[in-house]
Amino acid sequence: MKEERSGGPHLPRIRPSIPNPPPSPSTPSPQPTSPLPFTTLTFATSLDSSLALAPGARTALSGPQSKSMTHYLRSRHDAILIGVGTAIADNPGLNCRIAGVGGYGGEGLTRQPRPIVIDPTARWDLTADSKILALVRSNQGLAPFIITSTRCTPPTAEKQALLESHGGKYIALDPVSQPHDDEEREEGREGASHRMDWTAVLSCLRSQGLRSVMIEGGGSIINSLLGPRAQGLIDSVVVTIAPTWLGRGGVVVSPDRRVDGHGVAIPASRLTDVKWYPLGEDVVLCGRIKDL
Amino acid sequence: MKEERSGGPHLPRIRPSIPNPPPSPSTPSPQPTSPLPFTTLTFATSLDSSLALAPGARTALSGPQSKSMTHYLRSRHDAILIGVGTAIADNPGLNCRIAGVGGYGGEGLTRQPRPIVIDPTARWDLTADSKILALVRSNQGLAPFIITSTRCTPPTAEKQALLESHGGKYIALDPVSQPHDDEEREEGREGASHRMDWTAVLSCLRSQGLRSVMIEGGGSIINSLLGPRAQGLIDSVVVTIAPTWLGRGGVVVSPDRRVDGHGVAIPASRLTDVKWYPLGEDVVLCGRIKDL
Repeated sequence: MKEERSGGPHLPRIRPSIPNPPPSPSTPSPQPTSPLPFTTLTFATSLDSSLALAPGARTALSGPQSKSMTHYLRSRHDAILIGVGTAIADNPGLNCRIAGVGGYGGEGLTRQPRPIVIDPTARWDLTADSKILALVRSNQGLAPFIITSTRCTPPTAEKQALLESHGGKYIALDPVSQPHDDEEREEGREGASHRMDWTAVLSCLRSQGLRSVMIEGGGSIINSLLGPRAQGLIDSVVVTIAPTWLGRGGVVVSPDRRVDGHGVAIPASRLTDVKWYPLGEDVVLCGRIKDL
Repeated sequence: MKEERSGGPHLPRIRPSIPNPPPSPSTPSPQPTSPLPFTTLTFATSLDSSLALAPGARTALSGPQSKSMTHYLRSRHDAILIGVGTAIADNPGLNCRIAGVGGYGGEGLTRQPRPIVIDPTARWDLTADSKILALVRSNQGLAPFIITSTRCTPPTAEKQALLESHGGKYIALDPVSQPHDDEEREEGREGASHRMDWTAVLSCLRSQGLRSVMIEGGGSIINSLLGPRAQGLIDSVVVTIAPTWLGRGGVVVSPDRRVDGHGVAIPASRLTDVKWYPLGEDVVLCGRIKDL
């Protein structure tokens, strides 16, 4: 963190790797030095690595201080990214609700991140009543960019018009063309043919002027990014752990297993530059993915 | 912790709930005030709550400082308890290897905990070559008490004689007579008919003069004790978390799920009086199970 910003009185010590604040509008944009945005992967789990008691179940895990940290991190990124499952389950606002940010005492929409929803089959039923669009109309947030697949049925003209009238848009990208390996083909994994390529997604976001993305969930998105093929795209990891066990059957964060040249399982991923910050009853872990 | 003991230079701040040190041999034993020993449940996991990459695979998770803490905790308990799966996989020593403890500079076997192995079907092939008995012969540890079921074929007379010649013994206890519920019966869960009753096991250990037990694993033992039927027997929990994801397919700590009166899943367990201690790259979590 190069510049001190207010994160509220509860967050005096947290120092995750986060991007520099965006320049003020009067600062000329620097030439892009990377074709991809800075990425922070962040989520809260139980001790048994569950995000929720069941798919679609909103589960209170982290305490108020951790939630405050999340909003602070949102203020430091140009975009927030989630998967469509989370969008449908939570009807989320995906804005930043801390004092001093646009809509919360700040000018215009300063520091409000752009919501990004990965929705390969365009199944999110976004309506004028959706919380995310209501926040746009009350000048407290930005409209989402929704990433779909070029292979799905495009959203109706009405849906596109609704989203565009709020300042958002649909963006269609080519999905991954083939299942990545034999194992995946054998599993006939649902949705594999609609899976998006992370480099293409992030490259697209950068081309939209978004220099930093905070990736918040849900389980499929997180597990995909922690897997060996994508983890190199993650610049910073911030995990909140709450001192509870949700029990078997929840939505679990655990990447696909990795094996060595002899087919023996080895750890899928490890963090380096690790810092642990006790925060209320939770702990916050900040680190970077260690190179494989 | 009522009395300060040496835990080595790396452990200045750890204050889990642990029992008072055992009285010196000259102190008369107090009358027992509880029929059960003080119990500490302790283990190390990855961020995805795995103890190991696969059943039987020894997996380096925690760093040297966390290992040092484990030996400190061992010195503060009368007994260490593990399941037979861990005994077979690890050929463990189950002694305390810190300076000042018996066999490591201390007199006799002072502070050496009694190893307890839960082995309902008496399948552990304990031999004179087993590390745990070699340590007894070199005056660096105590021989194990092995808890079997009254329904299994007893160990051979030779095995019993070998164990007793080292100062250990087999103890047969009645297993749980029936599967606990319909779900368990339907699953035909392997070994359910040999499952031990935790209250009976702990009561037996107390009757053997053991006033405190540190329970170290493996997965079946931990998940059983974190479940709703047994968690009330645990006095203290100490979990080390390493900043790595092992990936799917490991040996996972996650208790059976718990449901409310309407069949809706609720958190299985939660800790209270929580303290988090960063220790090297790991974090150590100390707490007590919150009453359900």
